[in-house]
Amino acid sequence: MNVFQIPAPLPEQEWTELLLEGSTRIERIISHGQTSGWYDQTEDEWVCVLAGEGELEYADGSRQRLRTGDTAWLPAHLRHRVSYTSEPCIWLCVFRRAE
Amino acid sequence: MNVFQIPAPLPEQEWTELLLEGSTRIERIISHGQTSGWYDQTEDEWVCVLAGEGELEYADGSRQRLRTGDTAWLPAHLRHRVSYTSEPCIWLCVFRRAE
Repeated sequence: MNVFQIPAPLPEQEWTELLLEGSTRIERIISHGQTSGWYDQTEDEWVCVLAGEGELEYADGSRQRLRTGDTAWLPAHLRHRVSYTSEPCIWLCVFRRAE
Repeated sequence: MNVFQIPAPLPEQEWTELLLEGSTRIERIISHGQTSGWYDQTEDEWVCVLAGEGELEYADGSRQRLRTGDTAWLPAHLRHRVSYTSEPCIWLCVFRRAE
């Protein structure tokens, strides 16, 4: 699996599970312009933008722009949504179940 | 923290802890030509080469070349060493303690 290889054609967002091992899950997500609804996750999430740009919006209205290489930490139940993605935007997401 | 930003000057390998949360630890390692001795880790490790190239050698003598974007899974106690790194080589390493 190569995280920078983008399948074509890519009609929608693409989720690829890279690892599922115990409480740890790693996903690659390829967005290209999509945004999301609100997430209220039961898992912690560490996220890194590997290519392109994305933006997260939080419940207090603040927004965090993530440029290529930037990272964010989203503890479980920190409400957030994806408010912007470039075309494409490659996310690497490391999820962990609360212990 | 931006995973692609390389500090200068960079005299030796650089380890940066990006996350330490319970049993999950995420590190960025910047190599530039260094190799390593043998590892026999107590943690599982998922690794991704974010820039450059690296090579892992295993106890059976096999070698795995990792080009930009390639990933590898190193269960705890899988003996391995870094047998090659380009200048530079940026590794993203997700460690998890056995459960």
